[in-house]
Formats: sequence, structure tokens, C-alpha cells
Amino acid sequence: MTITITAFETSPDEGQGLARDMRVRWALEEAWQPYDVRLLSMRALKQPAHRALNPFGSIPTFEERGLALFESGAIVLHIAERHAGLLPEDANARARAITWIFAALNTVEPPIVQHEMATYFERDKPWRDEHLAMIVERVRDRLGDLSKRLGDADWLEGDFSAADLMMILVLRRLDGSGILDEYPNLADYVARGVARPAYQREFADQAAVIAAAPRG
Amino acid sequence: MTITITAFETSPDEGQGLARDMRVRWALEEAWQPYDVRLLSMRALKQPAHRALNPFGSIPTFEERGLALFESGAIVLHIAERHAGLLPEDANARARAITWIFAALNTVEPPIVQHEMATYFERDKPWRDEHLAMIVERVRDRLGDLSKRLGDADWLEGDFSAADLMMILVLRRLDGSGILDEYPNLADYVARGVARPAYQREFADQAAVIAAAPRG
Repeated sequence: MTITITAFETSPDEGQGLARDMRVRWALEEAWQPYDVRLLSMRALKQPAHRALNPFGSIPTFEERGLALFESGAIVLHIAERHAGLLPEDANARARAITWIFAALNTVEPPIVQHEMATYFERDKPWRDEHLAMIVERVRDRLGDLSKRLGDADWLEGDFSAADLMMILVLRRLDGSGILDEYPNLADYVARGVARPAYQREFADQAAVIAAAPRG
Repeated sequence: MTITITAFETSPDEGQGLARDMRVRWALEEAWQPYDVRLLSMRALKQPAHRALNPFGSIPTFEERGLALFESGAIVLHIAERHAGLLPEDANARARAITWIFAALNTVEPPIVQHEMATYFERDKPWRDEHLAMIVERVRDRLGDLSKRLGDADWLEGDFSAADLMMILVLRRLDGSGILDEYPNLADYVARGVARPAYQREFADQAAVIAAAPRG
């Protein structure tokens, strides 16, 4: 039985590849695993059938042989632990790479998501700029620390791993904000990641889905 | 060699047990693993010696036989995978429990942390109440979904697991806000967790540390 994942039928980012299914697609492409994508409308996300898979009504989900998972971090870790090429073989290096998956999701992403939310949902508030400036400082704190740690290494822990996949897609959420350009080694790191053939394949796949979707 | 973790020398929460080292302490207590705690001042957190362990300068960290990890989620998962009693034995149930660790950290915790940040850092802003009200709605969205999924079950995935440990400590961050009381099954769930002997032992340990700390 093939793996099935879920993604947005009509992506809010219009094909930029910022939705969280990209994390799972990239992992599956690196692992050369075939998969089906079930597309969901915003309405379908809130229905009981999808809530049974993900109680929070979001994407992506992952189904394979009677196992259903949600949370992009958990799914990527699940794939990485079962297929070669996404985690180091050495046990300690492996634990460190898994630490970076959590760091991407719990330390680096939260202020970036706050930045997105303030940009969109506080658009009409007179205090939006002041709040956004506070959040940008939090984003800079994280990126500054990450930039120092990465230094001139290519990847976070030895060879490319699921840690990089996750961190790079988290950093990509800053596209268009200009903030990432303040940290040239991080901008190069993202460029290195998205140049990988597996990323190129997944990006083309998700863009084709968006291109085929009805325009609202 | 004993496990060594790090914690705040003087806890910002004054002994309420809300800092992230609690997650690691609880996991170690459930697993009956002895550990040393190295206490760090706010100044020490920013020094190179600690940055080498955690590039983002926060607690907790975990050291054992040449392996150093950071990120409470990664550390708890590492402990849970190596000791009985913190994850289901069945492979699919295990993957689902790990999904809940990520859900606690990536889906439930972010709006709760936003709530804390707005409460403290926006205290003097004229728009604090308006912004806080927006965040409270996000917190309620997550808690409502979680409450529905938990229903009248005792724990998230079969027996008590690292998933519950993580979720309960995330929910404890709402102590004093009154929001959790809107979801009686979640309030009961937290009460069930903190009644566990392992939680009681860790809570007493961290409270003793705080009580012994110099008053500023």
C-alpha cells in the first residue's frame, strides 16, 4: 500500500511551496518513496473525516498500512527513521540531528510564525508596525544564534539530514521579508537545500497541483 | 557516568515548576534514572561554555557519556526511546505517541507562549488587551480541539506516555489564566498527570532548588 499524504487543494501561498506538506514531500523524495497526495479544501479540513486523522484540522497527514500520523515534525521523523539518507548512522550524531528537528520547529519557527500572523491578521491594526518590530527582533535573535552555530558548515549535523530539510523550510517562511538576507550564511544554506534534486522534484509536484487548481 | 541536565539557578516562575527542565526531570523520574542538575544564572546562559551545549542559550540541556543534547522535546524523546514506561511497545502506537509530543510542542504550545509573551512584554502597551484577546481565541481553538479528541480517555495514546508528560506541562503554562478551567476534561487530565509520584518527586526537587536560591 502506498503512502498517502494530505495537502491544501488551493494553497494559501499560491505555489510558493511554504505549506507544511512540503516538509513531508521533501523527506519522501529524498527517500525515493512513492506517495499519493489527497487534496483538501478549507471546508474539508474541518470535517469529521479529516479530524479523525488530525484533531486540529490541518495538513499534512500521513497514512500507510493502517498507521495514521499528523504533525509534520512527527511524520518527517517517522520517514527519516525508516529510510536511509535522512539521519546519520552513528547513534549520537542521530540524536543530535533529531535535536535540530525540534530546534527548527520549537525555537526557530515560533517567532517566524508570529511574524506571519502579525503581517496578515494585524494588517488593519494601528499598532501592527510596533508589534511587528518587536517580533522581528525575536526572529533576529534566533537567526543570529543559528547563523553563529552554522558558521561555514554546509549542514547542521554532518551530511544533509532531516534536520536541514526542516530548518530550511522553516527559514523559507521568511521569503519576501528580507530578514534572511541579513545572515548571508543562512541565505546560502537555504539556497544549498533548495538546489537538491529531491527538493526540485517536490517543488515541481506541488506547483503542478496549484497550477491545476480552480481559481477562486 | 551520570546524566547531567541544566536548569535556571533562579527560576523566573519562583518555584511554580513551569520552566522547560521540568519536562526532562519528569521523564527521568518516570524512568527511575538518577541525574545531576547544573544550575545556571541568566548571565551564564549567554556564555560560550553554555552556547556550546545550546546555541540558543536556553535550558534544559542533557549530557551523558559524551553526548550533549538541547531542546526539551528532543531530550524527552531520547530518554523515552531508551527506557521503559514512556512510550508504547507497539510500533504504530509508539509513532502516534511521538506525534503527540510534536503536537504538544508545535500546535498547542505556540499560542500559549504567545499568551505569556503578550501578558509580560506588552504589559505597558495600550493595545495589550486587544492583542491578548486575539491570542486567547487561538489558545481556545487548540484547547477545544484537544478536549474533543481526549474525550473521557485518561491519556492521549493508551497508557501514560511521554506524550502526556509533554502535553500536561504545556497546559500547565496556562495556570492562573483561568482558560484551562473552560475545558473540564483537560483540567482533570492535568490533575491526573501532576498526581503521579514521578511528577511529585520532580516538583519537590525543583522547588527545593528554588527555595535554596539566593533572593535577589
